[in-house]
Amino acid sequence: MDKPPFPTPDDAERAFYEAFTRGDLDALMAVWAEDEETVCVHPGGSRFTGLAAIRESWKQLFETGMKFIVRTSHPVKNHAMLMAVHSVLQHITVEGDDTIAPPLITTNIYIRGAQGWQMLVHHTSPSPDTDGLLLQDSPRTVH
Amino acid sequence: MDKPPFPTPDDAERAFYEAFTRGDLDALMAVWAEDEETVCVHPGGSRFTGLAAIRESWKQLFETGMKFIVRTSHPVKNHAMLMAVHSVLQHITVEGDDTIAPPLITTNIYIRGAQGWQMLVHHTSPSPDTDGLLLQDSPRTVH
Repeated sequence: MDKPPFPTPDDAERAFYEAFTRGDLDALMAVWAEDEETVCVHPGGSRFTGLAAIRESWKQLFETGMKFIVRTSHPVKNHAMLMAVHSVLQHITVEGDDTIAPPLITTNIYIRGAQGWQMLVHHTSPSPDTDGLLLQDSPRTVH
Repeated sequence: MDKPPFPTPDDAERAFYEAFTRGDLDALMAVWAEDEETVCVHPGGSRFTGLAAIRESWKQLFETGMKFIVRTSHPVKNHAMLMAVHSVLQHITVEGDDTIAPPLITTNIYIRGAQGWQMLVHHTSPSPDTDGLLLQDSPRTVH
């Protein structure tokens, strides 16, 4: 499979959320590292390991036909030479649904390989729906 | 503060869960990296960033007086030179309570610094209480 290069963790993250918003399974899976230790946890869901199981989980999500609008905020980033972690709040709205859901809390981990940076872990979990409680201390972005 | 050295991510993880089980706040905090990008998410809870907020969250947990017995299973590990990720299932029982709670899903991230390996991120989230659904594909341990 021809994979697009992601020169930085931010490029990989941007491609991931763009593919998520477009419901583009191939583009979303192209962000993932071809690594046996890939892990994906959907909010409140099971832990999927390995690309086949991860792909199937996203396929099922996209096959619901729901169109998601996904954005992230409040990143806390730490980049090492070969691995990077982005903690973000993930805001998802479903097209045609006016409900404002509370943001999710997401840990994204990227590794650097021959194809540049790719996703190793995507762990998203529900958060309490409480203004002012979701973020403790001052979140910060450091590149 | 005198910090014990953790020569490997596994040493840091062992110290973390031993301190958690003992309810030893100082020992637990000694595992964390002195880094502004530290992130801690308790199951279903808010995102805490920075050591002061993280310490306070554990202090409140331990001050409930509950004694936890914590163990982990099904690790999926990926170690880079300066950063390591452990995805584990976290099994917590409360002393005196016979309830078997479903395991939690945890992403632990460690970074290597002058003090050896220390914790950067601890993200734990609830999972569905369903046998056979919690683990998809075959989890594996690779060192």
